[in-house]
Amino acid sequence: MSKKYVYLFEEGRTDMKGLLGGKGANLAEMTNIGLPVPQGITVTTEACNDYYAQGRKMPEGLEEEIKEKIAVLEQKVGKKFGDTENPLLLSIRSGAKFSMPGMMDTILNLGLNEQTCDAMTKATNNERFVLDCYRRFIQMFSGVVLNMEHHKFERILETQKEKRGVHFDTELDTDDLKAVVEGYKAIVKRETGRDFPTDPMEQLLLAVQAVFGSWNNQRAIVYRRLNQIPDDLGTAVNIQSMVFGNMGNDCGTGVAFTRNPSTGEKALYGEYLINAQGEDVVAGIRTPQPISKLQEEMPEIYRQFAEICEILEKHYKNMQDIEFTIERGKLYILQTRHGKRTANAAIKIAVEMVGEKLIDKTEAVLRVEANALDQLLHRRIDPDARFDVIAKGLPASPGAACGKVVFDTDEAESLGQTGEKVLLVRTETTPDDIHGIVAAQGILTSRGGMTSHAAVVARGMGKPCVCGCESIKIDYESQQFWVGDLVVKAGDLISIDGATGQVILGQVPMIDPELSPEFQMLLEWADEIRTMAVRANADTPEDAAKAREFGAEGIGLCRTEHMFMAQDRLPVVQEMILAENIEDREVALTKLLPVQQGDFYGILKAMEGFPVYIRLLDPPLHEFLPNIEELVVEITELKCTGGDKKVIEVKEELLRKVRQLHEFNPMLGHRGCRLGVTYPEIYAMQVRAIYQATAQLVKEGVNARPEVMIPLVIHVNELKMLREQAVEIARAIQEEQNVTFDIHVGTMIELPRAAVTADEIATEADFFSFGTNDLTQTTLGFSRDDAEGKFLHEYVNKKILADNPFVVLDQAGVGKLVKMGTDLGRQANPKLKVGICGEHGGEPSSIGFCHQIGMDYVSCSPYRVPIARLASAQAAAGGESSVSTK
Amino acid sequence: MSKKYVYLFEEGRTDMKGLLGGKGANLAEMTNIGLPVPQGITVTTEACNDYYAQGRKMPEGLEEEIKEKIAVLEQKVGKKFGDTENPLLLSIRSGAKFSMPGMMDTILNLGLNEQTCDAMTKATNNERFVLDCYRRFIQMFSGVVLNMEHHKFERILETQKEKRGVHFDTELDTDDLKAVVEGYKAIVKRETGRDFPTDPMEQLLLAVQAVFGSWNNQRAIVYRRLNQIPDDLGTAVNIQSMVFGNMGNDCGTGVAFTRNPSTGEKALYGEYLINAQGEDVVAGIRTPQPISKLQEEMPEIYRQFAEICEILEKHYKNMQDIEFTIERGKLYILQTRHGKRTANAAIKIAVEMVGEKLIDKTEAVLRVEANALDQLLHRRIDPDARFDVIAKGLPASPGAACGKVVFDTDEAESLGQTGEKVLLVRTETTPDDIHGIVAAQGILTSRGGMTSHAAVVARGMGKPCVCGCESIKIDYESQQFWVGDLVVKAGDLISIDGATGQVILGQVPMIDPELSPEFQMLLEWADEIRTMAVRANADTPEDAAKAREFGAEGIGLCRTEHMFMAQDRLPVVQEMILAENIEDREVALTKLLPVQQGDFYGILKAMEGFPVYIRLLDPPLHEFLPNIEELVVEITELKCTGGDKKVIEVKEELLRKVRQLHEFNPMLGHRGCRLGVTYPEIYAMQVRAIYQATAQLVKEGVNARPEVMIPLVIHVNELKMLREQAVEIARAIQEEQNVTFDIHVGTMIELPRAAVTADEIATEADFFSFGTNDLTQTTLGFSRDDAEGKFLHEYVNKKILADNPFVVLDQAGVGKLVKMGTDLGRQANPKLKVGICGEHGGEPSSIGFCHQIGMDYVSCSPYRVPIARLASAQAAAGGESSVSTK
Repeated sequence: MSKKYVYLFEEGRTDMKGLLGGKGANLAEMTNIGLPVPQGITVTTEACNDYYAQGRKMPEGLEEEIKEKIAVLEQKVGKKFGDTENPLLLSIRSGAKFSMPGMMDTILNLGLNEQTCDAMTKATNNERFVLDCYRRFIQMFSGVVLNMEHHKFERILETQKEKRGVHFDTELDTDDLKAVVEGYKAIVKRETGRDFPTDPMEQLLLAVQAVFGSWNNQRAIVYRRLNQIPDDLGTAVNIQSMVFGNMGNDCGTGVAFTRNPSTGEKALYGEYLINAQGEDVVAGIRTPQPISKLQEEMPEIYRQFAEICEILEKHYKNMQDIEFTIERGKLYILQTRHGKRTANAAIKIAVEMVGEKLIDKTEAVLRVEANALDQLLHRRIDPDARFDVIAKGLPASPGAACGKVVFDTDEAESLGQTGEKVLLVRTETTPDDIHGIVAAQGILTSRGGMTSHAAVVARGMGKPCVCGCESIKIDYESQQFWVGDLVVKAGDLISIDGATGQVILGQVPMIDPELSPEFQMLLEWADEIRTMAVRANADTPEDAAKAREFGAEGIGLCRTEHMFMAQDRLPVVQEMILAENIEDREVALTKLLPVQQGDFYGILKAMEGFPVYIRLLDPPLHEFLPNIEELVVEITELKCTGGDKKVIEVKEELLRKVRQLHEFNPMLGHRGCRLGVTYPEIYAMQVRAIYQATAQLVKEGVNARPEVMIPLVIHVNELKMLREQAVEIARAIQEEQNVTFDIHVGTMIELPRAAVTADEIATEADFFSFGTNDLTQTTLGFSRDDAEGKFLHEYVNKKILADNPFVVLDQAGVGKLVKMGTDLGRQANPKLKVGICGEHGGEPSSIGFCHQIGMDYVSCSPYRVPIARLASAQAAAGGESSVSTK
Repeated sequence: MSKKYVYLFEEGRTDMKGLLGGKGANLAEMTNIGLPVPQGITVTTEACNDYYAQGRKMPEGLEEEIKEKIAVLEQKVGKKFGDTENPLLLSIRSGAKFSMPGMMDTILNLGLNEQTCDAMTKATNNERFVLDCYRRFIQMFSGVVLNMEHHKFERILETQKEKRGVHFDTELDTDDLKAVVEGYKAIVKRETGRDFPTDPMEQLLLAVQAVFGSWNNQRAIVYRRLNQIPDDLGTAVNIQSMVFGNMGNDCGTGVAFTRNPSTGEKALYGEYLINAQGEDVVAGIRTPQPISKLQEEMPEIYRQFAEICEILEKHYKNMQDIEFTIERGKLYILQTRHGKRTANAAIKIAVEMVGEKLIDKTEAVLRVEANALDQLLHRRIDPDARFDVIAKGLPASPGAACGKVVFDTDEAESLGQTGEKVLLVRTETTPDDIHGIVAAQGILTSRGGMTSHAAVVARGMGKPCVCGCESIKIDYESQQFWVGDLVVKAGDLISIDGATGQVILGQVPMIDPELSPEFQMLLEWADEIRTMAVRANADTPEDAAKAREFGAEGIGLCRTEHMFMAQDRLPVVQEMILAENIEDREVALTKLLPVQQGDFYGILKAMEGFPVYIRLLDPPLHEFLPNIEELVVEITELKCTGGDKKVIEVKEELLRKVRQLHEFNPMLGHRGCRLGVTYPEIYAMQVRAIYQATAQLVKEGVNARPEVMIPLVIHVNELKMLREQAVEIARAIQEEQNVTFDIHVGTMIELPRAAVTADEIATEADFFSFGTNDLTQTTLGFSRDDAEGKFLHEYVNKKILADNPFVVLDQAGVGKLVKMGTDLGRQANPKLKVGICGEHGGEPSSIGFCHQIGMDYVSCSPYRVPIARLASAQAAAGGESSVSTK
């Protein structure tokens, strides 16, 4: 076999993450720069992939190689694996290329059995410690390798604690632990039908295979899907000699970040537990001490640790998340990785690191995941609002949220899918709760610290989270929680503030966020780097103003139908639609003209100096009419109850007209420029309104820059006809009013035919705006209204589609048409401006695609403009978006 | 100027049709082979195009060139244009590349004024004849050049006839005609404000420009659209010295076909009128004599004519439509062209000409317009039926039709568009009636012969027509016609038989056509030539048998949902759909399994030896459920009238479920393989039914060849999942029943995403079947149900689209995706079978496209299988389809 499956730590490097996994590569790197890392070896991801390729069988040669390298390890450490004198114990941890915290499995203290326990007891003279290790080992091994349920072991431990009347594990004595170990062994025998494996090498090989297997457990798959991590990377297995944080009060274990992952402040931030093993901290079972306390308790250790933190941060040029263990007064570093952080922290750290000359501006721009800005742009609780805080927990992930209390993860998911806003309330969360967290507005837990599962995951998702709120007592059975005498039931509304830890009964007023100076700085750097313009989709002067505030350089989509929907206008619009002839329709249109002109005046003025692409009427006319079913019920009732015959007649006449306009598939119906072709007078009125408003503004000295956008074009002939009409009207207004302004007419490309005949269409267009919402609907044959409620969720879950194509642009399908349309259009008309105005225009990976195919601009909702600015810059800088917050 | 705009007849050739038009090229050819053609010149189509290019202005040099060539003509003929001694008169006729009968304008006797009339009278000693020519000239010139209405002149003529108490124009004497001419001149002066132009050269130049202008009159535009003739060809103008059929009883004019255009029989077929000018025959004003009568009346002329007919047919190797004039006992040929013919005649002529060694089999196959076969495949009146013939006219175009009597052309069109079957009843038709003829099932006229407008047009369209049915008296005013005492009103049902000329009151039983031996022969030749297989879309054993009878080589689309709709099955299908859980659904599916198995057994048996592509369930489930609106009305009524509460509850529960399944855009909804993915048990049942039927047949020794077709795929992952399921089921049945059969699974390509990712999809597919109906809907964003009723008609009329894209494949848009899908699929999977099963699979130009991009087969409705066989052969032979019947 020429393949090398196992590496000693000193054989690796940080850039070997693909082969050794992130954890293994960093352990190797730290070993090589001389940090106090317990010795170990790494089984490669290749071994894992070969394991799967061979139908879940250990690849040939792997077992021998592991044994060989273990022998080297034994020599270095000076202990022997399975030895009855000085046994080597191992920790087994998974480690994939991308960090997947909590997703994979870990086994500590591997190698223990009756004999090695005895040897350990002799060597340490601490039987209680050995038994503590042993019970942890049996439980972890049984969970990971033997697939036994965690709670079966917990119950034995709890029973023992109850029997002894104690609260914490540390209060159990040697005899208690002996009883626990015996209980554990008995249940393994009962459940699996065989004794707990005692041969250390058998334990090791089973554990390695179990880590391989955990790559494809459900939680890992879901995590990868959520984070767009490929399924074929595989995981490495790190086999490291154990160091013990649970040998007594001169021992401990902890986790710390080199900077504050919530605010970005430059100061050590973390927690530790005295006399504990690693899992105890992140599991959130005992509430740990803040890292600053370590400076008081163990000043020398703290000094060493702070120094190592600085070394690591400078070495990796990034904020680090570091695990450490103190064994009898000696510090060991067990892991380092780029620390997850909130968007706010990511921005502050990136901007400050530029100041510290650790990284350059481009790197800073790449350091912040564009999508994560979203959390900064969300609302927070109005500081002037009065409200009753019923409890306070840890401020684990900033932002405020409000929703109905839900205790069950599955229920949170199913309610969330129906559009219900829910808050997930749990004693603590585990990786099995991911889908509920995804669906919830925010998370509230009664146990666990700032690095507990709920906190880490919520920050990653930019979701508000309050953790360790111990004053609330949760009863899953009765579906309620108490705070003192107050009872809060499932379904009640509560609010949380993840920035303060406050829990509030009911709904509270919230306000828009203010953006930090670092945020502005980062976006300015992004503006220097990006090559695509960023515009907003806005229909009102207020939206336009908001868009400019967020840095939009124009409006890429101004919809005109919302203006028709206003209550005072709808009757006139209906009059226009129901007109039996063109004369009657013209009368109604004449009433609408000044109203529309006013709309356009406001928007063009708000966007002074920037282009405003105004889309002419798009939806089918029946959208403005009463609902058929309601009319039918009304008429049936009137008839049944002997209603006025005249009224019935009028209603029936209305029904007849509404039926005439009814469509089987409105999405594919008589809409967009199909209306413009069959009722040219409607578009004529809109164009007149646009250019009369423009003329008015020009006379007032305002640089108004409207462009007319024709929707739903499928054939150049449509555009030619409607463009001619628009230009004629504009010219007439110029002449009448003796003003000059530019006349630009372009089109949406939102149907496949438009994309594949874009070369023809481009000859009549000044610009293309890809409407990828509709293009996705027709390219995939998915009606969004139907698909999202009926089958899309299942399609993503069954992995038929990687993502919801209405959120993330389907590059292989829809994207192919967008690229084709862009290329064909540019070939035929090199001056053509090309952009996107579907919702994808605010989604980072889709923005990356737009950059890649050479678009001139993206347009998105005002609140996503900052995201688009950042994502455009990242695309221009060559990265898609940073993975540092993944 | 290097451009030559005017050609003498002897300078042209038959292959110069593009430049000289069909008429001009044939006049030149006949001149050159020595036939008695009156001398003349042709102004080229280039001159016409330059006329339009310069904004309807005579191109530079054209006037001089015309005068030059007229001088040459004068020398040859020995008369001078405008001369007061021996004046040359001219006929001016349009002539485009493709024959457009009745669409363009003609002026005879040009050059007449007071002086030339006097000279003519002296020369011919026949004042009546000269006046007859003069009044015709004034009327035609005024109509064509001065845009005056025909009926204004007709009224003057009719008034004169009434005054004299005569019936025919020929009964008017010299004084009468003088009065008519004066009346004509007076009305021209009154209407146009100026005298009728008297300068012959001014007359000529105005006439040439008027012919150019007539290229773009409404009738010509409509004709070109109907016949897919490009708009930019332009028309030539033929200027020919007049010969006169109206100089007395040794004169005449006529039209004849070298073979019978209705039956194809090899015998002269035509009509003539003694003492008449050309327009009198085709205008249908006097009912002419059959050509056989000429043999009695003028045997020598007839002999000469028959000889010329034979020469021309051999020269052109095609049946000819020849116009002739006899001037004082001398025969002149005025025009020859390929004769229009019925499909039956086209087949008989093509097959017989192969026998006569005039053409080869491939040419014969190219000679018959594939679409025209449709008329042969339509029904005719059951010969055993009893019915009352109320009248009998000329059998002008074969086939039987039944419909409501409509007298108004516009009404025929508007009723026809709503799907109403109408019969257009007119005294005679004109080119202005085209749109009504298109919309009608058949045409009945009370005047005019076999070559009248109605007859020619109806034959071209393959529509039943009865002409010259003089026993019916039509009164447009009261909207009825009489046959003796019988009154038939607008809206009454009548039937006509275009093969016998019978007119029948009410509806009569009709039967399927039997196909002639020539038809079978031609299709056999087509089968030898074509390279694509032809299959049928068929859902029942009966359809399958019919398809085989017509020569289908398999079933390209067997829909399974029609089987679900049968009344006895629907309740079980509803039970299956409304099941709240998978167990209940399985119960219903178990009931459906044997029923479906029976369906498949029948079809596979009927198609023994040929592949049958069975499409799994496609429509959204709510199509099988009650209508929401009806349910709502029912519940409202029950509530209003105090109905049984239990019943209301049950109905409301049903309504709730139906609402759950309701979709906004069912076309883009939860259908096709989306159902297969979310309810795998439904597809599993269908696949089981298919292969159990197959196993049963294999055991019976029948070669059953099912292939499973997955509808509406957008992503390879869907197909992979459903294919695996199907293969697994098939294998299990093979094992259980110990039989072998091939397992093939393929997919419809009917959504744009499938086409653009066909390379991925092809890796899991044995075949692609392009569903161009749905692909057209999504590519264009047109819901067919909505578009055809709402705007598609206007789109075609406004020439935004050349054709209804649901009838003729939109090659530039949809076709581009079909080609892309085919190419990508073949690249990824060279064994991939590719075909089409949308309605376009039976449309000749679309079939040509399928051949061109290399498809393996087309599939269409059984009745269109012969069309597809012929069109495929024509495509393989390099022609698209013959223009000989255009």
